[in-house]
Amino acid sequence: MQKRLTVEEYIKGILLQDRIILSRAITLIESQLANDRKLAEKVLEGVLPNTGNAIRIGITGVPGVGKSTFIESFGKFITSQNKKIAVLAIDPTSQRTKGSIMGDKTRMEELAHDSKAYIRPSPSGNTLGGVANKTRETMLLCEAAGFEIIIVETVGVGQSETVVKGMVDFFLLLMLSGAGDELQGIKRGIMEMADAVAITKADGDNNQKANNARMEYVHALHLYPPTQNNWYPPVLTCSALEKTGLSEIWHVIMNFSIQMQENGYWKKNRQEQNLAWMYDYIRHFLESQFFEDQHVKDNIKLIERNILNEQMLPIKGAMALLEKHIQKNVSSSIDI
Amino acid sequence: MQKRLTVEEYIKGILLQDRIILSRAITLIESQLANDRKLAEKVLEGVLPNTGNAIRIGITGVPGVGKSTFIESFGKFITSQNKKIAVLAIDPTSQRTKGSIMGDKTRMEELAHDSKAYIRPSPSGNTLGGVANKTRETMLLCEAAGFEIIIVETVGVGQSETVVKGMVDFFLLLMLSGAGDELQGIKRGIMEMADAVAITKADGDNNQKANNARMEYVHALHLYPPTQNNWYPPVLTCSALEKTGLSEIWHVIMNFSIQMQENGYWKKNRQEQNLAWMYDYIRHFLESQFFEDQHVKDNIKLIERNILNEQMLPIKGAMALLEKHIQKNVSSSIDI
Repeated sequence: MQKRLTVEEYIKGILLQDRIILSRAITLIESQLANDRKLAEKVLEGVLPNTGNAIRIGITGVPGVGKSTFIESFGKFITSQNKKIAVLAIDPTSQRTKGSIMGDKTRMEELAHDSKAYIRPSPSGNTLGGVANKTRETMLLCEAAGFEIIIVETVGVGQSETVVKGMVDFFLLLMLSGAGDELQGIKRGIMEMADAVAITKADGDNNQKANNARMEYVHALHLYPPTQNNWYPPVLTCSALEKTGLSEIWHVIMNFSIQMQENGYWKKNRQEQNLAWMYDYIRHFLESQFFEDQHVKDNIKLIERNILNEQMLPIKGAMALLEKHIQKNVSSSIDI
Repeated sequence: MQKRLTVEEYIKGILLQDRIILSRAITLIESQLANDRKLAEKVLEGVLPNTGNAIRIGITGVPGVGKSTFIESFGKFITSQNKKIAVLAIDPTSQRTKGSIMGDKTRMEELAHDSKAYIRPSPSGNTLGGVANKTRETMLLCEAAGFEIIIVETVGVGQSETVVKGMVDFFLLLMLSGAGDELQGIKRGIMEMADAVAITKADGDNNQKANNARMEYVHALHLYPPTQNNWYPPVLTCSALEKTGLSEIWHVIMNFSIQMQENGYWKKNRQEQNLAWMYDYIRHFLESQFFEDQHVKDNIKLIERNILNEQMLPIKGAMALLEKHIQKNVSSSIDI
């Protein structure tokens, strides 16, 4: 077993860009033990003044869109610009399988061996809120360790895109060409969160198809109202295979970053994200505590069944589970 | 002061379709007093077997789209089909002003005097969750009182559409013609929640413009993946002034209802909504209780300021506010 590091050793190691210590600090953050948690918070506080300087990029797309191939090529492009990049992930499926988006060792092999890149698989956890929180904290540690670009990867199904959108500066949606069946996996609403759409696999015979798809999306996005930052999301094509379109995407991100820093949206967005983080954390804590309660655990399945069978009013079910909380607060006037 | 009714009197009155007693029961539901709350729950439980038979329709659109004029004309059309209709509202702005969407007495005057229609303004409340909960309960009372069509109206700004979408069978989005400036008020993502889009004010000189807008939206919606119920949202035009397009919208809703009842989605959707209602209620209760706590009230503004100034980690702020909860549960292993 490794010798336990002190708070100061963690902080110093991270700021000195020591990857072994960075990895150990992330493991500390991912730990469920109360003592580790306390230590992790002190480490985070210690590095706080050195965080916030990276460009945080969220990337999503359905399975099959070529997400890891894209991130590998795009990551290599970024390191070729002499920028240090960290790739993190939020993978809701890994919560079930205890596997990970990036658990497969053959993925992003080239990028994994790049000295300017750092890849960390998705933390495991029971709830998306818990996993997201750990990814946010990991992002801060990576920033303190000198990474200038942080990529947070997620799959385009479920709730995780909204969570990733809430922790990044720029959100990139990868799409396949052909507006037909391939799109069905993408959750409705995701396209509206994108700061840019990139059509992948625009190579060889597929090039024309990708360009057609591009025009379709340009038209579709045109019908949306502009985002609150007054940015019109461009649609691009790229090929991870032929390494085309990558510098164009990079330039879009650079332009976005300059424009948003100038108009003040960059800072405003980060501030709002931080407040939202606090509120998310509080909500997540209260709910976790509630659903871990033995009385709730013992009764929730039966109550759910009664509600599904229309034998019980949802509010009655809620009250039965909230029993302890209500007794404690019989005199309070909560707005329900 | 009115004599207080017993649970049995409320239930009997509602089932006998007595509007005065229905109105008093809704007032009971909207009350913040603990005793009223207990009585309200018993009334709800008593009428539960008589609920669920209405078609629940959500209607949204930006201010200026002609929402109340549409609902008045559409409501009159429905009562002319010999159907009883109740019109409820969720109005987030009324929480601030303590006014109401339908507070203006001149609105829907004709429908208000129709013996087959019942109009109830948005309840006031401090939180959208609280207001929504009351609207859900009011909907149940109206169903028990024999209303066959329930319309829940909301404005197309803010979070309230998602909440309304979660309590209705069919969600209708009203849009103005012209895909330009008029659309900017509509929140991104709302179009994807619609089961149908109706372009309003398709009359006189505006008719051609409305038809052009219709084609644009048909094209835009075509790019979306189908909804999980395999329904392709149609786009229609209508005029509340010339009373055109109303029967077409009504037929779309009838077709939707038949198709969804046949393929099982109708029931499945209601079951999911009921479960979600229970979980919403629990979350809302836990959060209300937390934010009403004096320690939280005393400290939250300062902590928010520190987070905005980047003087404090969001998680540190959350922990400071959660202090009491954490001390109580020092030994529990919550997944944070």
